Amino acid sequence: MNKKTIEKFFAGDTLTASRLMSVVEKGGADAEDVLNTLFPKMGRAYRIGVTGLTGAGKSTLVNQLTRLYRTRDLTVGVVAEDPTSPFSGGAILGDRVRMLDSHGDAGVFIRSIASRGNETGLSQKASELADILDAFGRDVIFLETIGVGQLEYKIRYSAQTTVVVLTPDAGDDVQSLKSGLMEIGEIFAVNKADRPVADRFADDLRSMLDLRSTGDGWEPPVVCTVATTGEGIDDLAKAIDQHQSYLDTNGLLEKKRIDALTNRVTIIAEEKLREIFWENGYIKERLKSTLDDVLSGTISPYQAADKLVTPFKHDMDNAEGDAR
Amino acid sequence: MNKKTIEKFFAGDTLTASRLMSVVEKGGADAEDVLNTLFPKMGRAYRIGVTGLTGAGKSTLVNQLTRLYRTRDLTVGVVAEDPTSPFSGGAILGDRVRMLDSHGDAGVFIRSIASRGNETGLSQKASELADILDAFGRDVIFLETIGVGQLEYKIRYSAQTTVVVLTPDAGDDVQSLKSGLMEIGEIFAVNKADRPVADRFADDLRSMLDLRSTGDGWEPPVVCTVATTGEGIDDLAKAIDQHQSYLDTNGLLEKKRIDALTNRVTIIAEEKLREIFWENGYIKERLKSTLDDVLSGTISPYQAADKLVTPFKHDMDNAEGDAR
Repeated sequence: MNKKTIEKFFAGDTLTASRLMSVVEKGGADAEDVLNTLFPKMGRAYRIGVTGLTGAGKSTLVNQLTRLYRTRDLTVGVVAEDPTSPFSGGAILGDRVRMLDSHGDAGVFIRSIASRGNETGLSQKASELADILDAFGRDVIFLETIGVGQLEYKIRYSAQTTVVVLTPDAGDDVQSLKSGLMEIGEIFAVNKADRPVADRFADDLRSMLDLRSTGDGWEPPVVCTVATTGEGIDDLAKAIDQHQSYLDTNGLLEKKRIDALTNRVTIIAEEKLREIFWENGYIKERLKSTLDDVLSGTISPYQAADKLVTPFKHDMDNAEGDAR
Repeated sequence: MNKKTIEKFFAGDTLTASRLMSVVEKGGADAEDVLNTLFPKMGRAYRIGVTGLTGAGKSTLVNQLTRLYRTRDLTVGVVAEDPTSPFSGGAILGDRVRMLDSHGDAGVFIRSIASRGNETGLSQKASELADILDAFGRDVIFLETIGVGQLEYKIRYSAQTTVVVLTPDAGDDVQSLKSGLMEIGEIFAVNKADRPVADRFADDLRSMLDLRSTGDGWEPPVVCTVATTGEGIDDLAKAIDQHQSYLDTNGLLEKKRIDALTNRVTIIAEEKLREIFWENGYIKERLKSTLDDVLSGTISPYQAADKLVTPFKHDMDNAEGDAR
């Protein structure tokens, strides 16, 4: 990264920020360079994950929360995963358009990220775009993501507070919710709470959460909202505030930071390791014949994997004692 | 594996099969041993993936198809992911209970697999349980899985035909469907087709699929079903037959087999590689100080990952020329 770009970025130039986010989205060495350069300035923003199934009203909810945080004079960044039209490859704009009533406010920076099938990579990218907004000085960053499951979540996460958005009609039954979503929620928003079954749904959810053993002692509240009218948004913001001060009082913010960074290093190291492995001359050479042996039924997939990996185990073990 | 167990397994003893599946589900060296031993007998069954969101009626549909295949005198195996109750850790039995009307028929073998948060591991396990049923001699195996996305699918897949089950109310809008689900479907079942919006939903789906560029030339049909009454099950089975003969005629069965096995070897090799890496003495020793540097802001996560991984790159590269 050249000095001028860095200067412009830290001077608050949104066009530069936007460009750097595109570089990061593209990935590769340039992306690493940007993330490395800006890293010392990251870690100041409060990150709020808003997750749930498609159609739950996440975007509208984020929009309402954004408006509310703006009245508190906090700057806001939004990183949102867009469901991609499976055939056109383009993002579906419906939800995004509704977000635009914050458009023109320099205190709000919205960035969509198109999901193109690779959810894991996407999750990491979403976190990295949030990193840029963080370094850019946003006070609050929303990570609006499609709720999938716990694995997804673990890969992705750098949020301090996670809001799971549900609707009373999600299978008509709290029990049928994916366990992953239930486990990651620190606050549950029952959106579209003007529907007749909403109260019962919220009660069922509360009873389920009562049974939950929370690792860090926090008891996830259930907040009813109608994102389209703004009903319940104050309560939701209050719940987020309470969670934030709970984390703060109990020294959990630092724990979350350590977990998130450890997780990030692990993911990136494994990615690099995979790359090194498959690009290795020996592997390239041996892969075809090994696969042929599997296809002919001579060796099993596990035996094939052993055949490929074992030589490296020896190298690594032997190299342990060497000076590096 | 001892000889007696192998003999009992191939003699068709369901208790032995069930025990071996438990060993595989647990993982580790014993699981590998079982899978290695049985590998030469795998690859004969026709595998049908049935995937879709929770509540779409997958289990009931599989149940109906099972009944139909039994009338053709084909033996059936079912591997089903159960959503796990997030707090009790136990499987939710609702759907599974409905499956039990095939209970007592030795030609039907049903195996549930509880999802405990780790979706990727789960996917591989599901495929491996299907492997056991395959070696056990089942003619048809259903892999009933919670539809998540393309990534999930890639990790998982060993099915020849994939049926995506949708319901007319899924967000009320075909466009909002996760792209991953749209891309993997070779047959689409619009279940609960007795709902008023079903026809429009099916039509919308068909128009979307018309725009789809199919890699292998197959045009995914849309079949309306009411799993609870059995309506449309014949049509669905017919669609599966047609897909099977399409694959057969066009030499695509072999292509699918190669892809699935290649994918399997890749996944297992990467898993083993990760294990070797994190268990390595050098890494263990260096990890803590490297993470400390990240936490203090001295180096970024990417730089930390490089620090950990680079020595191995050298080892691997240097070792390339060695005799192995």
